[in-house]
Amino acid sequence: MLELGVCYYPEQWPEHMWERDAQRMVELGLTWVRVGEFAWSLIEEEEGKFNWTWLDRAVDILGKAGLKVVMCTPSAAPPKWLIDKHPEILPVDAEGHVRKFGARRHYCFSSDIYREHAVRIAGEYAKRYGANPFVNAWQIDNEYGDHDTIHSYSESAKKAFQSWLTSRYHDIEALNQAWGTVFWSMKYNRFDQIELPNSLVEEPSPTHLLDYQRFASDEVIKFNRAQVDIVRKHAPDRPVTHNFMGHNTDFDHYELGQDLDFASWDSYPMGALIHGKMDDAEKARLLRTGIIDQPAFNNDLYRQAGQGRAWIMEQQPGPVNWAAHNQSPHDGMVRLWTWLAFAHGIDVVVYFRWRQSKFAQEQFHAGLLLPNDEPDQAYFEVAQVAKEIAQLPQEIADRKTAKVALMLDYASRWAALSLPQGKDYSSARNMMNWYQALSAKGVDVDIVGPHNDLSAYDLVILPDIILENAELVQKLKASNAKIYLGARTGSKTQNMHIPDNLPPGEFAQLINVKVKRVESLPEYNQDLIVMDEQRFAVGNWRECIESDEPVLARFESNHRDQSPALVGNEKCWYGTANFSGAALEHLVDRLLSWAGVPMSSLDRDVRVTKRGPLHFAFNFGERSAEVQMPEGAEILLGRAEIAPRDVVIWRE
Amino acid sequence: MLELGVCYYPEQWPEHMWERDAQRMVELGLTWVRVGEFAWSLIEEEEGKFNWTWLDRAVDILGKAGLKVVMCTPSAAPPKWLIDKHPEILPVDAEGHVRKFGARRHYCFSSDIYREHAVRIAGEYAKRYGANPFVNAWQIDNEYGDHDTIHSYSESAKKAFQSWLTSRYHDIEALNQAWGTVFWSMKYNRFDQIELPNSLVEEPSPTHLLDYQRFASDEVIKFNRAQVDIVRKHAPDRPVTHNFMGHNTDFDHYELGQDLDFASWDSYPMGALIHGKMDDAEKARLLRTGIIDQPAFNNDLYRQAGQGRAWIMEQQPGPVNWAAHNQSPHDGMVRLWTWLAFAHGIDVVVYFRWRQSKFAQEQFHAGLLLPNDEPDQAYFEVAQVAKEIAQLPQEIADRKTAKVALMLDYASRWAALSLPQGKDYSSARNMMNWYQALSAKGVDVDIVGPHNDLSAYDLVILPDIILENAELVQKLKASNAKIYLGARTGSKTQNMHIPDNLPPGEFAQLINVKVKRVESLPEYNQDLIVMDEQRFAVGNWRECIESDEPVLARFESNHRDQSPALVGNEKCWYGTANFSGAALEHLVDRLLSWAGVPMSSLDRDVRVTKRGPLHFAFNFGERSAEVQMPEGAEILLGRAEIAPRDVVIWRE
Amino acid sequence: MLELGVCYYPEQWPEHMWERDAQRMVELGLTWVRVGEFAWSLIEEEEGKFNWTWLDRAVDILGKAGLKVVMCTPSAAPPKWLIDKHPEILPVDAEGHVRKFGARRHYCFSSDIYREHAVRIAGEYAKRYGANPFVNAWQIDNEYGDHDTIHSYSESAKKAFQSWLTSRYHDIEALNQAWGTVFWSMKYNRFDQIELPNSLVEEPSPTHLLDYQRFASDEVIKFNRAQVDIVRKHAPDRPVTHNFMGHNTDFDHYELGQDLDFASWDSYPMGALIHGKMDDAEKARLLRTGIIDQPAFNNDLYRQAGQGRAWIMEQQPGPVNWAAHNQSPHDGMVRLWTWLAFAHGIDVVVYFRWRQSKFAQEQFHAGLLLPNDEPDQAYFEVAQVAKEIAQLPQEIADRKTAKVALMLDYASRWAALSLPQGKDYSSARNMMNWYQALSAKGVDVDIVGPHNDLSAYDLVILPDIILENAELVQKLKASNAKIYLGARTGSKTQNMHIPDNLPPGEFAQLINVKVKRVESLPEYNQDLIVMDEQRFAVGNWRECIESDEPVLARFESNHRDQSPALVGNEKCWYGTANFSGAALEHLVDRLLSWAGVPMSSLDRDVRVTKRGPLHFAFNFGERSAEVQMPEGAEILLGRAEIAPRDVVIWRE
Repeated sequence: MLELGVCYYPEQWPEHMWERDAQRMVELGLTWVRVGEFAWSLIEEEEGKFNWTWLDRAVDILGKAGLKVVMCTPSAAPPKWLIDKHPEILPVDAEGHVRKFGARRHYCFSSDIYREHAVRIAGEYAKRYGANPFVNAWQIDNEYGDHDTIHSYSESAKKAFQSWLTSRYHDIEALNQAWGTVFWSMKYNRFDQIELPNSLVEEPSPTHLLDYQRFASDEVIKFNRAQVDIVRKHAPDRPVTHNFMGHNTDFDHYELGQDLDFASWDSYPMGALIHGKMDDAEKARLLRTGIIDQPAFNNDLYRQAGQGRAWIMEQQPGPVNWAAHNQSPHDGMVRLWTWLAFAHGIDVVVYFRWRQSKFAQEQFHAGLLLPNDEPDQAYFEVAQVAKEIAQLPQEIADRKTAKVALMLDYASRWAALSLPQGKDYSSARNMMNWYQALSAKGVDVDIVGPHNDLSAYDLVILPDIILENAELVQKLKASNAKIYLGARTGSKTQNMHIPDNLPPGEFAQLINVKVKRVESLPEYNQDLIVMDEQRFAVGNWRECIESDEPVLARFESNHRDQSPALVGNEKCWYGTANFSGAALEHLVDRLLSWAGVPMSSLDRDVRVTKRGPLHFAFNFGERSAEVQMPEGAEILLGRAEIAPRDVVIWRE
Repeated sequence: MLELGVCYYPEQWPEHMWERDAQRMVELGLTWVRVGEFAWSLIEEEEGKFNWTWLDRAVDILGKAGLKVVMCTPSAAPPKWLIDKHPEILPVDAEGHVRKFGARRHYCFSSDIYREHAVRIAGEYAKRYGANPFVNAWQIDNEYGDHDTIHSYSESAKKAFQSWLTSRYHDIEALNQAWGTVFWSMKYNRFDQIELPNSLVEEPSPTHLLDYQRFASDEVIKFNRAQVDIVRKHAPDRPVTHNFMGHNTDFDHYELGQDLDFASWDSYPMGALIHGKMDDAEKARLLRTGIIDQPAFNNDLYRQAGQGRAWIMEQQPGPVNWAAHNQSPHDGMVRLWTWLAFAHGIDVVVYFRWRQSKFAQEQFHAGLLLPNDEPDQAYFEVAQVAKEIAQLPQEIADRKTAKVALMLDYASRWAALSLPQGKDYSSARNMMNWYQALSAKGVDVDIVGPHNDLSAYDLVILPDIILENAELVQKLKASNAKIYLGARTGSKTQNMHIPDNLPPGEFAQLINVKVKRVESLPEYNQDLIVMDEQRFAVGNWRECIESDEPVLARFESNHRDQSPALVGNEKCWYGTANFSGAALEHLVDRLLSWAGVPMSSLDRDVRVTKRGPLHFAFNFGERSAEVQMPEGAEILLGRAEIAPRDVVIWRE
Repeated sequence: MLELGVCYYPEQWPEHMWERDAQRMVELGLTWVRVGEFAWSLIEEEEGKFNWTWLDRAVDILGKAGLKVVMCTPSAAPPKWLIDKHPEILPVDAEGHVRKFGARRHYCFSSDIYREHAVRIAGEYAKRYGANPFVNAWQIDNEYGDHDTIHSYSESAKKAFQSWLTSRYHDIEALNQAWGTVFWSMKYNRFDQIELPNSLVEEPSPTHLLDYQRFASDEVIKFNRAQVDIVRKHAPDRPVTHNFMGHNTDFDHYELGQDLDFASWDSYPMGALIHGKMDDAEKARLLRTGIIDQPAFNNDLYRQAGQGRAWIMEQQPGPVNWAAHNQSPHDGMVRLWTWLAFAHGIDVVVYFRWRQSKFAQEQFHAGLLLPNDEPDQAYFEVAQVAKEIAQLPQEIADRKTAKVALMLDYASRWAALSLPQGKDYSSARNMMNWYQALSAKGVDVDIVGPHNDLSAYDLVILPDIILENAELVQKLKASNAKIYLGARTGSKTQNMHIPDNLPPGEFAQLINVKVKRVESLPEYNQDLIVMDEQRFAVGNWRECIESDEPVLARFESNHRDQSPALVGNEKCWYGTANFSGAALEHLVDRLLSWAGVPMSSLDRDVRVTKRGPLHFAFNFGERSAEVQMPEGAEILLGRAEIAPRDVVIWRE
């Protein structure tokens, strides 16, 4: 069943408004309400002195009005009295400056003291509300990683890192080998000599950096799990989640997802424009729409991280306050994003927030209501969605496994950061380029990690999975899927060494390629490749390989002219260029044909996807668009001629 | 009477040169000489060990030659022995680094120890020279705010801030309410828990930031007043001033001006180019002229800050040393700027400096003389001005109150910085755009604050006075002036909350407008508005309002097409766009017609203005320009056909 | 005799590979092998506990195979145990942050403790290998200045700076005079009051900055000399060198060179692109060639620093790992750079490195061999060079003194940094512009310092030797050379004051010029000059002078139209513009004609030069080029029609 909800902060409004707020939520068609994640200092005003009255009452009012409550543990914002008592809780930035109290997320994941307090307060919450009939789900903390808070360079972090390394390597010589400390006389005699990899004269060993990033990810997972455990103890049978931030990759979202009952993510498509690399005209065109495929990608990613179950826990309802510029989404976009989420397998969309705040940091952040209690634009769009949901069948099937899998590996992301080799090399951009090129062909995609079962796919794409992985290679060999390996695949061992047989290391079992030279290239340089007798520009990264596999594309260049840009056998292709733009479009076309995956021809701003028997088509553009549907298709919502920013849903 | 002066550093030149220097100054036509502001370590070589001999002699020589001395207190540069004794005097930057001794302005305004020493040395100066017949005016310190020195993050500043907050709020709950600490669990139990708003994980509460800026401004005013008081005690009847820096808005210049007998400012038009936002061709065109209206604007501002009385205390005489590039002003510009200042109500123009230094930081800064004692270009221009002054009547009337007032409110500036919402939102640029558009129509403008009497104006423009102000609204209602309110007007209460009735809050008494959506927009986006059947591009900021007032301009946009860009009743207009360029020119034209303010048609590089019965016209351009003057006008200086960089003065 | 060598790290490879590596080196035609510079922590695993076995064995294997060993002292990377014992060794950056262990060059030159340990370990190395028959040369430390490591702001540096100042000035009043501390009340009473010039509120006195840079240079020289002394003591008769980094000017390379038997430098032409100021098309054109004249310039510079003797100690063999982008050099470039070095007087070219590392920071840095032991491209090119050397005479004469000298003065570089006056003023770029313009005319150039004998030159060019130098002026007067003085010449005394007679100070003895106004100009401004009835654009810097010398070029400008751009008498010319591009080409043409220096007409990408009787021509371009050689010239290598990236050598 598709459901809607909202984030609500009763503590920020006079108590007399709560009852009416609850009624209006229900009238609007909402069934979920999230509360409590920034309430620690109101609940525990001094250490051990608790005041639950207001929250008890709020939950009661909301629940009795018919809403299901998502209760959040409040560890994202420890109170000042706790920081004053234990200032060592505060995180330390890469320059060694303590990051002070005064906003939120002011804690270091490696502080044992803080983790104990976070678990303690989570336990108090869980004891209080674990059995409350209105509290139907739990959220742990809020947006791990927001404002670069995964990495801290505190004394606690240093000690914890030394201890983590001891567990990983046992023997200091093993670490010396892995990190290659012989290189610059960096040899360690004992684990307690090891420093955090900040403020060095030059860059540290990439293995030092990679291990630090693995450690930091593990610290988040440990912190989260400790809270999950105590919440589950006192609130059995209530699903537990965390609300991820889409663009953060500083910890392993798959791994953290294993400890949750479902994943959720916070969807702010307007702000994502700042992460894109586009010319100004394209940015202007997408100004009030956002990057079309960014929300879809994240819906797919977190569906995977949640092992099939995901919510949007915060959906942007209008302009926000935190981007460099904060434009208004086009009217209709909030509804569009909501339906897009449902189409991509999201079960519940929760809007952030009920009513725009009059004060504090986010007062420019829109809500469903204006600060003066009048409805804002999103209110009307949510009302429409709520009505439209009722037009669909009550039971909505899950999405089927897609035919195409696109691999995102967090450790490989950290590997790229540990040794980027080119300053504008971006795995995130590569991934989004692939996702967009596939989506533009009307192809559904699953985002997968190396740990996932790949047996059901027709095509598995590894854009740049840098770290060798023998188990993954076995799975790929065992599957019936066609495989695409992008440049840099398997170029490093798990210890960040070059494989003995040169890149792609273990992946050479799939295709006989040996990478003998790599180049990272500046933006002002474009090379040409010839594929199927057409010329395409490529750039950013180039490899020269030795291979006896059939050559599918070649460089046309004053440097090593005719060297292969793409080689392939019947099982696996390997690309030596960093395909993007028209080159990538063509490559995707070829790959889909090769793997036998059906594609469609879509307008530039139209997207289609399927959830169970339901087909969805979305028009992000300015003009109406006609979508092709088979004869006999039953339209459940909308029309085949989709208006701008509209959706059509049909069943075959 | 219009007078000229010069900044002189006898301590930097051999004593045998002083007598001749003084004679040459008098011969040149100067009547004022400023001394002493960087002399502390020469006067007090060790604590309590004073050496006045040299300064006594210098004052004597200058005075006997016929010059009036401006004596400066030396607190802008405390000696090393004082810093060594009390290192806590040093300011601390936002990253927490102590800013060391070795240049100037190395003190924290919140250091009680330093304020005591600054008052002590000012007292010694005043006792020594308070009754000296040659010392006819006093300057306190030098250029408050230079090199970002208003804000310090020291322990002293923290304690002082806590104490300031205690005085402002009395009750910690009042502070919690004002700052909205409930928002992210930021609740304080006691004032001594409060930190300075630097080095946080995310941005602090905007009220925290605004209060910090108010506090920092108050610290400057307190520091200055303590010196003014002791100087007045020992030097009664001598006017006291401070030399402001035009582009600094980190403290309230109006408020500090209340403690002075006249205001003065330091005029460096060449360096101001770096603050402008222009394309390269326009920058190249203005390279050796500077932004035409920048000096005029500051003359008008400091005339207001000085309650009608203002000097230029430092006038650029040639290339300087501190900008990114230091070009030469065109020959003639020094004379032009001098006459421009007089025209805008300045009484005395003091040049910086007599002779270019051979050593230290500013050795590339021009003077009236070259380092080898030969005259530099400005020397000749000053000589010309001195002669020309004699052609005018001895008594020069003050400027009359203008018909148009443009409002600058320091607290609103801090409000914009506390919550900019768009990264390139600039109140300073908006202000300069308005001033330029009005000046280009030949209209004289008064710069006013919310505290000023507004009853005599025909038109009062509030470009973006963010903070609500009930008293101001009453004054505006009571006046006969037409009112223009720009976007963001009244969008925050004094506590940085959104007004209960939505923006423009109290200002809605003037015009029935309710702002329901705001957008900050990137440079690559331009929206179109239609006003009087003409299309204009606007950008940067846009609001959607609810209003029943007549619509004077509308957006033409794919976002909320036809929404009002300008509404207005008979008393007041409200603009929802950030007007600039051609859109602003047209708006200004419309506003002036509406308010019945006469305008002229001027060449692009020509400006006209009036001081009492005298009319001035200036030609900043490359070509001669004809200025229109009424029949019977008596030309006192120059010709109606103004040569490039020349001036004409006439009396009707 | 021309020789080849390679950098080798036996400690990074299994011992069983060493023997075969040595044999392959010899087979390839190498005669030198460099070892040991990052081996401290392997040699001395704990303080005083030495393990020489592996290095003994490596030297033995290499030597017995027929290779001559360059042994390096390991002070560029002190071991962790030493840092743990004496953390005060670590350098401190300009913000006051300690730069931690974990990479290399983590030491402050002013740490007495560290210098003692560096000398101690160098002594141990020298005792061990000083008499070893296979160890034929010594390198001290590695790449002084890499990653901005000359300047440290530690407590040790502060104390050492105070002591250095005491030695320089003896009397604190002398320092106060030199620094002009009277300017901003910066007077010191004692040397121990003086701070390092970082983290100030504004910029320090330029003399403070200049002295700090002189001090920092002296600290490097002292550090180096202490190691040279102990190595010479134990390894008499073995030449000692240091491997300089070409673009670093933070210490005086000439002065350090005085303590060496020969200079050597590390040649990475690909990375040098990032230091250039070119448009994107030009960057793309040079992408895989590098800036054509950058290696030649450095060959000439270090030949001078080595007093006629120089090696390349590290030659880039393929892509590297440390630039923003790391492209592949064109095939053939490694050979081309090798021959270019030999042509410019280099005796030995040593490649970095033998085999690409599989691990640690530089694993993307190419070697002669790939990590899997297969030959990489450079291997084949080196083999070719080795064979070609045999085609030349066994004895290769040294280069003759050139006809043209171009002056680089390190102290003048520091002077420019101490008081740049324009933010994009770059002495390094000016120097390279001159070198390129001369090379493009086929003219050989010697890079000289003010200390060099100048009597044999026909033309001496001082692009911007800022510091006055009476002795140099006497040498220039005494020589028969024609002299060119660029803008800023002699504009400061050795104490960074403006000369009493205005710039060019003492240089006015050569030409009657007095600089009365200087301008630094932004990129968006271009002025025109007229020279020989042709118009040229100039920018960046402009001076207005008083002079009765003949005017050779004039400005055409709306600012001081017709003011001289170039004046000259029979001995000396002075340019008031910063000539570059076409203006500089024309000026160089005129200067060479005037001085009677023959020039050639060359294709844009062709360079010619001479070493003794041998003539070399190089083609850096994409197309074949015909080189003119006299009748009867004997071609020793290549053909007169030079292929792209090829070389021809002939003897007249």
